[in-house]
Amino acid sequence: EPCVAALARVERTDFLSPMCIGEVAHVSAEITYTSKHSVEVQVNVLSENILTGAKKVTNKATLWYVPLSLKNVNKVVEVPPIQYARKEQEDEGRKRYEEQKLDRLETKQRNGDVIFPVINPEPHTVGYSQSSLIHLLGPSDCTLLGFVHGGVTMKLMDEVAGIVAARHCKTNVVTASVDAINFHEKIKKGSVITISGRMTFTSNKSMEIEVFVDADPFVDEPQERYRAVSAFFTYVSLSKEGKPLPVPQLL
Amino acid sequence: EPCVAALARVERTDFLSPMCIGEVAHVSAEITYTSKHSVEVQVNVLSENILTGAKKVTNKATLWYVPLSLKNVNKVVEVPPIQYARKEQEDEGRKRYEEQKLDRLETKQRNGDVIFPVINPEPHTVGYSQSSLIHLLGPSDCTLLGFVHGGVTMKLMDEVAGIVAARHCKTNVVTASVDAINFHEKIKKGSVITISGRMTFTSNKSMEIEVFVDADPFVDEPQERYRAVSAFFTYVSLSKEGKPLPVPQLL
Amino acid sequence: EPCVAALARVERTDFLSPMCIGEVAHVSAEITYTSKHSVEVQVNVLSENILTGAKKVTNKATLWYVPLSLKNVNKVVEVPPIQYARKEQEDEGRKRYEEQKLDRLETKQRNGDVIFPVINPEPHTVGYSQSSLIHLLGPSDCTLLGFVHGGVTMKLMDEVAGIVAARHCKTNVVTASVDAINFHEKIKKGSVITISGRMTFTSNKSMEIEVFVDADPFVDEPQERYRAVSAFFTYVSLSKEGKPLPVPQLL
Repeated sequence: EPCVAALARVERTDFLSPMCIGEVAHVSAEITYTSKHSVEVQVNVLSENILTGAKKVTNKATLWYVPLSLKNVNKVVEVPPIQYARKEQEDEGRKRYEEQKLDRLETKQRNGDVIFPVINPEPHTVGYSQSSLIHLLGPSDCTLLGFVHGGVTMKLMDEVAGIVAARHCKTNVVTASVDAINFHEKIKKGSVITISGRMTFTSNKSMEIEVFVDADPFVDEPQERYRAVSAFFTYVSLSKEGKPLPVPQLL
Repeated sequence: EPCVAALARVERTDFLSPMCIGEVAHVSAEITYTSKHSVEVQVNVLSENILTGAKKVTNKATLWYVPLSLKNVNKVVEVPPIQYARKEQEDEGRKRYEEQKLDRLETKQRNGDVIFPVINPEPHTVGYSQSSLIHLLGPSDCTLLGFVHGGVTMKLMDEVAGIVAARHCKTNVVTASVDAINFHEKIKKGSVITISGRMTFTSNKSMEIEVFVDADPFVDEPQERYRAVSAFFTYVSLSKEGKPLPVPQLL
Repeated sequence: EPCVAALARVERTDFLSPMCIGEVAHVSAEITYTSKHSVEVQVNVLSENILTGAKKVTNKATLWYVPLSLKNVNKVVEVPPIQYARKEQEDEGRKRYEEQKLDRLETKQRNGDVIFPVINPEPHTVGYSQSSLIHLLGPSDCTLLGFVHGGVTMKLMDEVAGIVAARHCKTNVVTASVDAINFHEKIKKGSVITISGRMTFTSNKSMEIEVFVDADPFVDEPQERYRAVSAFFTYVSLSKEGKPLPVPQLL
C-alpha cells in the first residue's frame, strides 16, 4: 500500500562539532529497527573540509517514523520487517522501541504547560529571557501530503531556544544537544504555529531551554489549538574567540 | 463563515531606523477599526540588539484587510464589529476609513500610466534610471488560496525602487518611507508580474520613485494584463559611512 | 490551445565573466527559430555595476522548449511559426534544429552509464572525487504543472560538478562552461533525484566533469528509476587571488 513516512520522534542528539560555510555535508542513513507500525532510522552526519580533505563527525541522530497511508492519512500502515544480521540487534532495537514508547507517553501527559508573558521581568529570571514566535505554514514548509516537515519545526524550535539563551547570557551561544523531540500530532498546511521557549535550568557551563510548539488549525477547521511538539535544548555560551564562557545563574 | 484576509492597502510608512543582521525583530499587531467589509490593523516593529538589550522602533504601519469567503473568493464577508474603549476611537477610525476609501478611488483613476523604454537616455533623466523586472508567481509566493502575498509584491516593488534610486545617484541608497500602497486587484498564482519604477521627483535630500505592478494572468485565463498595485517610495542617498548625501537633481 | 513550455535542451554555454553580489542582472530573451513542435530561445545576460554604471556580458545561452498541452501534459502542441527578417535566418535556424535533434538522440543512446562507489580511492583518480547528492522535489522546485524547473536541476548539477572539481584540486574552482544539457524526460513533483558527477578529463588548465540526474518517481507511481538529464561541465582551478592554477592530472 503506497504510504508516506511521518516523523514521530527524534532521540537525544549531540552536536559534536560545528559545520562551517563552504564545507560539504555527508548525510547517511539506515533502518536499524522496525516495529509493527514504526521504523527506526540511524542518521550520521560528517563535515568535509574540501580544501584539506579533513572529515569530522558533526552529529548522529536516531529518528522514528510512522508510515501513513497515501489514501487515508489517518491510517497507519503496517511495516514490512527487516532482516537483522544478529539476533541481539533485534532485541536491542525492541528495547529502544519500548523505551521511547514509554517516554512519548510521559511527555504527552505533562504537556499542559503554557508560557505566560511577564511584565517588567528582572534580568536572569525565567520571564526575562522567555521568547516566542509565530509562523504561518506555507507550501514550502510542507510535504506533498500537506503536513509540515519535521525539519522545519525543529529549525524554528532551535531559533527560539537560541534567542532565549542569547537574551539570558548576552553573548554568542551555540546548541550543544537536543533532548528527545516528540511529535505528538501532525500539523497541517495553513496552520499558524506558536513556538515558545523558556530557560528551565542553568549549570556553570550550560543552559537548558524548554520549547513548545502549539498549532492553531486553519480557519476552516473546527479543531482547537493543540500542543504539537515539545523538547529540551542545551546551549553553551561562547566568547568572541569561540571559547566557552560561564553561564549567569537563573534566578 | 470561514474566510481569508486579503491585503487591500498599506498606509504611508516611515522607516525610522535600520534592522541589523543578528537583531531580533518584535512584530506586534492589533485591530484598531472595523467597517462593514474591512479591518484596520496597526503593526509595530521593534528591533532588539540581543547582546546589549537595546530596543528601537524601526517602523509602524497601518494595513487594511478585506475578508474573502473561502468558498467563493470573489465574495466579501461581513466583519463582526469590535468594541472600542472610547467613543472617539470609533469616530477617528471611521474618519481614517473614509479618507483611505477616497484615496483608493483617486489612485485607481490615474492608474493608466505606462513606462516606456527610452533609447540612449542622458544621465539624471527619468529614462536613464527607470527599471523593471518580471517575476513568475510560484507556489512559495502565494497564500493557500493561490493569490500572491502582499509582502512578496511589496518586497519586489522596493527592490525595483532601490535599483532606480541607485542608478540615479550611483551611491548606496536606503528606503526612507513608502507612501500608501493600494492593492487594486488580486493577483493569481501562475501570473507573470512586471514591476516598473521611475523617478518622479528629487529634492536636495531625497528621491521619490513611482512603482507600478502589472499582472499578466496565466496562459489559461482569458483576462488581459491589468494594473494590480501602485505606490510611491522615498529614498535617500548614503555615503559609505552611512551619512546622507545630496541627491543629483532630476533633469 | 493553452500550453506550458517544457525545457528540452540548453546549448553549450560559456561563462565569460562573473556576476558579483550587489550587481544588477539584465536578462533578455527572444525567439530565434520555431520548428513544428519546438521553440529556440536566445538569452543574453549582462551584469551592471550600479555604482560605476559598467555593464559586461556574463553569458549567452540558447534554450529549446517544447510546448505541452495544459489539459494533457503528455501531448505536444503545434508551434505557430515566427516571421524571419531574412530567409537565411530560417535556414540557419533549421540547421541548428537538425543538429541538436541528432545530438539529443546520440546522448540518449549512451546514457546507460552508472557511477559506482569506490572503496579507499587514491587521490586524483576518478573514484576519489566522484560525488552525488539526493534531493526530494518539493513545491518550490516545480512549475504550476508539477514538474521540476530546468533551472533547479541545472543549479544542483553545477553544485555537484563544483564539489567534484574542488575535491580533485583542493582549491577554489569556478564553472567555465557547460556543454549541451539534454532534458530527456520530465521529472514530477515528489520524485527523489540523484545527481552524480565524475571527472572525465583534465587538461593543464581545466577539468571536464560528467553529471547525471536520475529520478525515482514518488512512491505512488509504478514507474522505475530513469535517467532524466545529463551534461558535461568544464571547471577551472583558481588561486586565492582569482588567478588560474594548473590542474592536477587525472590518474
